[in-house]
Amino acid sequence: MQVGGGDLQRLRQLNSLSSIRVLRAAPGPLTLTELATLTGLSRNSVIEVVGDLHELGWITDVEPAPGSLGRPAKRYRFRTDAGHVLGVDVGVHKVLAVITDLAGRTVSSGRVAVDARTTRDERLEAVWRAVEAALVASGLSARDLWGVTVGSIGVVNREGVVTRVESLPDWAGVDLIGHLGQRLSCPITVENDSKLAALAEQRLGIASGVRDLVYLHAGRRPGAALILSGRLHHGFSGASGEVGLMEMTGWRTMAAHLERSPAARGATPEDAAGLVFTAARAGDPEALEAVNAYAHQLALGTAAMVLTLDPELVVLGGGFSRSADVLLPALRRALEPHCLRVPEIRPSTLGEECVALGAACLALEHVDDHFFSSDGSISRPAAPQRLA
Amino acid sequence: MQVGGGDLQRLRQLNSLSSIRVLRAAPGPLTLTELATLTGLSRNSVIEVVGDLHELGWITDVEPAPGSLGRPAKRYRFRTDAGHVLGVDVGVHKVLAVITDLAGRTVSSGRVAVDARTTRDERLEAVWRAVEAALVASGLSARDLWGVTVGSIGVVNREGVVTRVESLPDWAGVDLIGHLGQRLSCPITVENDSKLAALAEQRLGIASGVRDLVYLHAGRRPGAALILSGRLHHGFSGASGEVGLMEMTGWRTMAAHLERSPAARGATPEDAAGLVFTAARAGDPEALEAVNAYAHQLALGTAAMVLTLDPELVVLGGGFSRSADVLLPALRRALEPHCLRVPEIRPSTLGEECVALGAACLALEHVDDHFFSSDGSISRPAAPQRLA
Repeated sequence: MQVGGGDLQRLRQLNSLSSIRVLRAAPGPLTLTELATLTGLSRNSVIEVVGDLHELGWITDVEPAPGSLGRPAKRYRFRTDAGHVLGVDVGVHKVLAVITDLAGRTVSSGRVAVDARTTRDERLEAVWRAVEAALVASGLSARDLWGVTVGSIGVVNREGVVTRVESLPDWAGVDLIGHLGQRLSCPITVENDSKLAALAEQRLGIASGVRDLVYLHAGRRPGAALILSGRLHHGFSGASGEVGLMEMTGWRTMAAHLERSPAARGATPEDAAGLVFTAARAGDPEALEAVNAYAHQLALGTAAMVLTLDPELVVLGGGFSRSADVLLPALRRALEPHCLRVPEIRPSTLGEECVALGAACLALEHVDDHFFSSDGSISRPAAPQRLA
Repeated sequence: MQVGGGDLQRLRQLNSLSSIRVLRAAPGPLTLTELATLTGLSRNSVIEVVGDLHELGWITDVEPAPGSLGRPAKRYRFRTDAGHVLGVDVGVHKVLAVITDLAGRTVSSGRVAVDARTTRDERLEAVWRAVEAALVASGLSARDLWGVTVGSIGVVNREGVVTRVESLPDWAGVDLIGHLGQRLSCPITVENDSKLAALAEQRLGIASGVRDLVYLHAGRRPGAALILSGRLHHGFSGASGEVGLMEMTGWRTMAAHLERSPAARGATPEDAAGLVFTAARAGDPEALEAVNAYAHQLALGTAAMVLTLDPELVVLGGGFSRSADVLLPALRRALEPHCLRVPEIRPSTLGEECVALGAACLALEHVDDHFFSSDGSISRPAAPQRLA
């Protein structure tokens, strides 16, 4: 068989690609022999690939374990600290920025408290302060970031613009990419916060490895998001998971079941749910009734999604998932009459960092899409430039 | 760079793979030069690959156009008749078997009329007769088939067993793979009929190239199916698209709006809808009211799916789609109050062959998955054996 120069270059890239994939997925460092076995490459090819990847800064060699007998073989591991990404959660009550390495492990974070009365400009300023804090805490500069994803409340379209938001009147139309692009030159994406929370649970949390799931944001304003075939389902205009807009689900008004419960007497709407869940946990009949009424309505929208998609799993997330011990059994009971098969329901485990972590996961996905591009080439992203 | 024997073999397979993909996708035959440009391979590699593929029977050379000046370059095309697949639609009123080539073009078909009183054994016997008829019409034998997919009414699980069916009491539990495997040795799969109709519309029909769509089976027993990211969405237990089981959609009883209309007076339930649509088309107010009532309920289940998925497109299929001129505008109006964005709605174009064609499409997908397997090897499927 004849092999031309272009073919050789292509083969070398393909070999590097499969080696990187194997090294990233490996639970520990690998020897040349192990890498050759796992990639199916010849030993000579592996030696060459390892040299290339070392030069690019993608892998590092690991000291042999002390006390090894004989002459221990060199071992190599993927350098998860070769690059970093930034995930930001812009919510009603907080802005949280998280910096992770290429394995999605949190390196640092910065947090700024805001509230429903914070104006758009103030909230955007809070984003900068949270990002600066995360950078300071990590010892990195903005030009070290390989990708940024921002999670926002509201419906976010393919261009990253918030097209519809109920809880913050002045937030619709905000252009977060344009805003962040003033000071960051790496790729920036924006996505709805519940969608990112769902992604975080599938990559780092309770839904690890599940291909199809429905994520419920159970809270005062319930929402939902979908992971399908292992990827976040955005929808044609970003408006997937909005089944709660159907009046027959009652999602837009169902928090009243908790807020009007005698168990929440005198509390603010924000504090009502916690009091009711606590009382229900202690066996208070009126509180249990309120939880059941909330669960009944949550089940209507959930059943519509479950019957549409027949997912493997439902993840119960959102603020109310802290009371999953009370809410989850009530939800399961309420789903029974509607569903052919009630899927497994698991409570979210990532807590209030889930949106920022999901944002970092999506940024990592885009970094991967860039590296492992369809032309088979591998490249370090161009060093980001601070524009302003 | 050193290249070992295993690497060379691998490179050759990858080159064959990319050449096959390019030749299959090309609108016409390609010259060696064109193939080299489109694959990025060297001319020498392309010559070698073309020799390999010729030997396997995958490609053929095409006579130069008469009247070409000079010495015309040889041109090659993918042989779509190198293999065939079988798609079967097992419905309440008919069994239809269709044989297609590797491009999904129908070569022959066989059809047997059945009805709701046909027993399970009689229906299975009708499947054989339809398949035999299609084989006879094509001049092929069972061992020429590379793959078979059967579309059945009811919920079909991952093992290909019908787990739930409302319209044929003795059909639940039928093992079509076991039955067909008695006489066919190629891979056999079974899938729900509406799901296959959806796939057909996306591969061959009105939804060509659309990645995310909701397919509505509008008929006396409405149903739905989903194409997500360009692939059929089966669901964890095969029960996706079953939103009509929610009582609040009214899908299980909505045909009564048409059957009880004065415009259908005296007609059987089977004939009622046609009469009502005809009367509505002529402007009969009572018939229009009945169509609007049906559309209103169809919209409830459709809106639940649209708000869940935010698809690019809704396809209006099923028997009632023959009256799309009347039904589609009514459905669009009924969706408006529920949806953030009413997706484009298009009527199905494939008619009553859609399930059998979709079955052939799924069989072709499995043939592709086999050929272009993840290890990069290309092989002709083993010649199927007639077992009985």
